[in-house]
Parts: sequence; C-alpha cells; structure tokens
Amino acid sequence: MQAEIIAIGDEILIGQTIDTNSAFIASQLNLHGIKVHLKRVIADDAQAIKQALDSVDPKTKYVFMTGGLGPTKDDITKKTLLEYFGGEMEFKPEVYAQIVKLFASFNREPKEVHRQQAFVPSSCEAIVNDTGTAPGMRFEKEGRFYFSSPGVPYETEHLVGDKIIPWILETQESGSIYHKTLITQGIGESDLAEKLSDWENSLPADVKLAYLPSPGLVKLRLSGHASNREESTKKVSEQIAILRHLLGDLVFGEDAHSLEEIVGKSLLARESTVAVAESCTGGYIGHLITKVPGSSAYFLGGIISYSNSLKMQLLGVKEESLKNFGAVSEEVALEMAEGVRKKCGSDFGISTTGVAGPSGGSPEKPVGTVWIGIAGPSGAVARKYNFGANRERNIRRSALMALDRLRKEVQKIEN
Amino acid sequence: MQAEIIAIGDEILIGQTIDTNSAFIASQLNLHGIKVHLKRVIADDAQAIKQALDSVDPKTKYVFMTGGLGPTKDDITKKTLLEYFGGEMEFKPEVYAQIVKLFASFNREPKEVHRQQAFVPSSCEAIVNDTGTAPGMRFEKEGRFYFSSPGVPYETEHLVGDKIIPWILETQESGSIYHKTLITQGIGESDLAEKLSDWENSLPADVKLAYLPSPGLVKLRLSGHASNREESTKKVSEQIAILRHLLGDLVFGEDAHSLEEIVGKSLLARESTVAVAESCTGGYIGHLITKVPGSSAYFLGGIISYSNSLKMQLLGVKEESLKNFGAVSEEVALEMAEGVRKKCGSDFGISTTGVAGPSGGSPEKPVGTVWIGIAGPSGAVARKYNFGANRERNIRRSALMALDRLRKEVQKIEN
Repeated sequence: MQAEIIAIGDEILIGQTIDTNSAFIASQLNLHGIKVHLKRVIADDAQAIKQALDSVDPKTKYVFMTGGLGPTKDDITKKTLLEYFGGEMEFKPEVYAQIVKLFASFNREPKEVHRQQAFVPSSCEAIVNDTGTAPGMRFEKEGRFYFSSPGVPYETEHLVGDKIIPWILETQESGSIYHKTLITQGIGESDLAEKLSDWENSLPADVKLAYLPSPGLVKLRLSGHASNREESTKKVSEQIAILRHLLGDLVFGEDAHSLEEIVGKSLLARESTVAVAESCTGGYIGHLITKVPGSSAYFLGGIISYSNSLKMQLLGVKEESLKNFGAVSEEVALEMAEGVRKKCGSDFGISTTGVAGPSGGSPEKPVGTVWIGIAGPSGAVARKYNFGANRERNIRRSALMALDRLRKEVQKIEN
Repeated sequence: MQAEIIAIGDEILIGQTIDTNSAFIASQLNLHGIKVHLKRVIADDAQAIKQALDSVDPKTKYVFMTGGLGPTKDDITKKTLLEYFGGEMEFKPEVYAQIVKLFASFNREPKEVHRQQAFVPSSCEAIVNDTGTAPGMRFEKEGRFYFSSPGVPYETEHLVGDKIIPWILETQESGSIYHKTLITQGIGESDLAEKLSDWENSLPADVKLAYLPSPGLVKLRLSGHASNREESTKKVSEQIAILRHLLGDLVFGEDAHSLEEIVGKSLLARESTVAVAESCTGGYIGHLITKVPGSSAYFLGGIISYSNSLKMQLLGVKEESLKNFGAVSEEVALEMAEGVRKKCGSDFGISTTGVAGPSGGSPEKPVGTVWIGIAGPSGAVARKYNFGANRERNIRRSALMALDRLRKEVQKIEN
C-alpha cells in the first residue's frame, strides 16, 4: 500500500520549523510495510491545501496531513477540510470530555477557544487526542483515507502512533518491504564503501544498500523487497549477518538504537557505573546518557570542568600538567578521567578536553583537536582526534567517540 | 520570485533522516524575499526525480535539489540529471583540485572513487564544494535555474549559503516579504492568543501573525507584505514594537537568537559568570550554554549530581535535607544552587532536581515535577514546576525555564 504526507504550515515552508512529523509518520508506516511515495510541505493556505489534495497520486491509499489545527487564527486546516469534504461543523461531546480532563490535570478549566476545538466536520470521524486540545480527523473518499493531526510533534506522535496506525493495521495487511539498519562509528562513508565493495556487488537485485552519514556515525540500511514479509525479512537478515561479520566492532547497534542506549545496556548488564568529566563537550555526554530512561542505574553524574581552575579543584588535575602540556593534552585528559572516576566512585570515568572552536586554535592544536580519556578497572588511556572546524559537529563527534570508546571498554568485561 | 525544493533520498522518505536541508534553504531564501512555494521529498529513483522536475510549478524560477550525490552506489542524482538535461560527463580540474586540497588537510590522498566526483554533466556549471567531495551543480532551462547539492547538511549549507544564494542575489533583486519573530518563554499558546486577541484583530490586512509553539517556547512570527522592502520592514517593525510592549519580559529574544545566546550576552555584558548543578537535566543546561561560541568567558562549569551521594559530596547538600524532604524539593534545589555557586566561585548558580520520568513518580511528586533554583549575589530562590509526562520534553522544558529564570535575574543587575 502507498501513502503520502502533506505537512501544512508556513513555518515549515519558510524554514523556521523543521518538519519532524513527516519523518515520524514515514518511519511508522515503513515499519508496517506501507511505502511513502511523496512528502510535501505547503503553505497555510486554503487553495494550496485543496490543490495538494487534488494532486494525490491515484495509487495512494492513505494521505496524512499535519498542522493548522491550533486554536489560533492562523490555523485554517479544519475549515478548509470542511469545504473540501463537505458537511457542517458538529460538536463532539467525547472530544470535549477529553479536553476538560486534560485541563483538569493542570488544575485549570478550558476556555471558549478550547471548547471550539471540539467541533469537527460532520464528514469525518473525530479521533480523540489524549495529549492536546485539537482532535485528529479521518475522512474517506472514493476508497482513500485522509488523516489530519496537529502540527505539535508529540500530538501527532500520539495520534498517528497510538490511534491511526493501529486502526489502519486492523483494516490492512502488512506489506512486503523489510528494512534493517546497522549503525557504525569510527569509519567514514568512502572507507566503508571500499571495504564493502565486493559484498555490495554481490547483493541480490531485490536487496538495496544505502549509506546514511551523519556527524560521527554512518548508518547502513538494507532494504529487501519480496512478495511477503517472511521472505523479505529472511533476505535482509542473511545479508545483515554477513555485514556484521565484515565490519566487526565498527558496528555498535541496529535500527533506532542509539549509541547511548547500547552503552547503557552494556553497563547495566555488568552492573557497572560511569561518571563524566567534560570540558569541550560541556555536558553533552551527560545529556546523551541521561536522555535514556533508567540511566540513573548506571550514571552517577560528573563534572563539567570548563575552566582550568575547576579542572584542578574538582578533578585533581595537576597544575604542572596544565602548565607544561596545556589543558588540551594527553596528561590532562588522563587526569580528568581518573579524577572523576575516583571522585564519583564509579567503575568508569570518561573525559574530553579539546578546542571546540571557532576560535582558540593554534598551529600545534588546531580547532577540532580533542583528547578523550577513559579510565576503568584495568587502567586509563587517552587518545587524540581531530574533528574539523565546526563547533557543533566537534561537540557531537567528541561525545559519540567517547561513548563508543566506553562501549568497547565495557564490552571487554565478561558479562 | 518563487522557488521549490526537492529533497532526494529514501532515508528521508522512510523517516530515518529528518530533512533539515530544506529548512535551511527555505530560511535563506526567505531572508532575501524569495518565496518557497512547495517542498517535496522523493525517492532515490530516476523516474521520481524526472517526474518531480516535470511537475515544477510554471511560476517557479529556482529549483533546489539536495541529496544523492555521494560516492556510493545508491546515489543516482548526478546520472539522472545528465539524462534529464543532456550532455556528457566532463572532468572539472578545479573541482578535483579542491578534492585534493580537502584530503591533504586530513593528511590523506583521494582515491579513484573521489576522483570520480570531479566529473559532472557538461550541461551544468560545477560549483566547487569547499567542505566535501561532491560539487554542486547549476543547470538552466527555459529561464529557470536548477541547483543540486549533496544531502550532507553542512555541505548544502556551505554550497547554498556561500555560493548559490550570493550568485542569485547578483542576478536577482530582493523581494518584498519581511518576517520578524519574537520568542517567548513561560506562557502557552492559548494564553498568548487571549492576551493578544484585541491587538491581533486590529492588525492591518497585509501583516500576518503566526503562533509557533515548541516545548518550552512559543515563537510569534509577523510577516509583512508590501511592494518594496522598506515598506514591508516598516509595517512589521511598528507591530513588533507594540507586541513587545504588550508582552514585556515574556519576550526573551528575536528571530534566530536562542535563549542560551541571550543569556550569554547578558552575562558577558555584566562580566558575570555562571555554574550549573544539574540533576534531572543531566548536563543539558551545560550543553546549551556551551553550544554558544565564546561561552568560556562566562561559563565556569558545574556538577552533574545524578546520584544523591554526589549531591552531598560535591555540592554540600545536607543529608537531613535529602532525608526529610527528598531529592526533589525546594531545600535541595536551593542547596544545590548555592553549593555550586560557592564551589565554582561563580556569580550565579543554577540547579535542577526533578522526576524526568517515565518512572520514579509518586502521588505527591508525579513525573514532571521539577524544582529549579537560582542563587546569585542577592540570594537564592527555588520554584516548583510541572512539565508533564514526557522525559525528553521535561528535560528540555526544565533547561529552558532555568535559563530564562537566569536571564531575568542577570538582567536585574545594572549593565
């Protein structure tokens, strides 16, 4: 089955907001073998909405629309869908009951502007939204379904993920495309391509490989097409096994698993703990680790030692190390990692110290120079990297490299 | 003038990658009054690319394509554009010279796969890419320009921002749409709409207001249309002045300025410093502050005290406070903020302690309960918030609220 996504909103069209809803919807559909044929972003404009609906591909069975359902004047999607699909505005008590409940949870009462949200076109089925005031809507016309959900990402995630997709699956068989992604760290796209070229040339015609580089990571996605799910899964799984063999520990995970989740699972399985000593990453490693629910079981905390005096005072870095080698040095990275491990009483300590940029570089230590230290039960090691000139990429690459180094160290311990 | 954007890539279509390039291109075009009529995401598929090019709106003058230019097999854009626009592959020495230079900066030499990147269709102008191996391309057909750039965001940012837009501006007058955005913190969309309803109803017809909510922030964008830039700027500026008056210190900044930049500027202007004591935010506040270049001038560092023992040991939180009131309490938030201020010797200390979720909540302290403390030269205050049930939103909202509280405290000090 084929789907299309139409994101409605000037804020996306002018680039002020990044369209994450379409990615969410597409990934959900894809999991169930429904292929997204086209994504469009159009203006908050009745004519643009109608024109987009008129030009849906004839083979498309599901059209997902997001945006333009808020309580404010610039939101015109509901009115436009009423004009397009016909009917009249109808009050939905079950929608209003949910709005009242939502406000009660904040100790507030809905205002008139919120009550208006409970009116939807009589030509649609209202879909109760547990996370906001705007209900989702489902229209049907000539065997095609049109869904509308709000532009706020967590509301669309709820409506599409919890309500719309389950409804589709009840009326719809799952498809025959299967994707699997391996995530690699520490090797670039071209080097990967060279390493994999023989294998890639030998892939069956109905298995497709894609390289998806991002700062610090390259994802390899294999897609298999077949007449049924079992067949497509089998084709991809066979190739994934070979790929894992070829790449060894360059691969840290599969599909949507993040490096921080994998590291967390490894620590948890070994009942080990970690603490961080962050200079150039400024707290980003701590943030990545603590994004994962349950991370308090293995993450004790750490020290953001942005200034040299805090490196000495809180981590025990020696004054002569700073003086003789500078803050961005092997010695300081080691002392930071060992210091935080001791100070926090953790099994592992990781440290970063570098020149994130854009200024602060020198001929010996250009912008992008980063030392990463790992201290653990079997000693401490620091290594030097150069991640290039962009500050945000430097921070991200440093953090991912530190987590990947930690992953490898932790996985050396018997489970 | 009107533009369209076509992002090419299965990874975007299946939702594995979020399309940030289109947002970047649109915001750049918009700055210069070029209106984006439509954004599309299509598959890495020759037919889909040709079909998209065939269905460009007749009024569109510029078509921006991104993606599918990598050195690997799944990248088919260049080949397809050769078929579509005609000509043959041609070696471009100036492109290859740049590739050699790029590799030299990593102490490496390009391989054959990289040399292949220097071949482009003879029907286009190659645009040298200073940040990667794939050159940009410019085709012209019947008075319309087609630009192609790689899918890697920083390469497209470079090619579009540094090369393509300047080239367009030399051949093209600037337009007559002007946007200005105010960013607010601490008030929801509906409450804002109510507060602004009289003013909104009195807006001139050619000035448009949009509400752009995201976790912790609501942006208000005013767009003015007029026959020339001076006129549209004037219309918007007048309304922005009124809006600032109506909203007072709910507004923390304009346009692309982030809260962390505004806070940084305020601290810098007062030669003040800050340190953080993060529990539920796990390093995210430190990360936001240090994303800003030059933040080492006002950010000393801090302590991520995820565990209770580190709260006591590193921040001096009293054992009886933890025992009597729990970690998520006014007392602990105050002791953390005061503790980190003292420990780090900063002018301000900020603290967060809360239940980020999804588990760990209780009837008295449900998931989303967060205490935020600010200690400064004139004393310390902690306040309680409830940010709802989603972990990632909780972390983000807590961090933004903490930064906004800091902003208000810092701005109280005479400059």
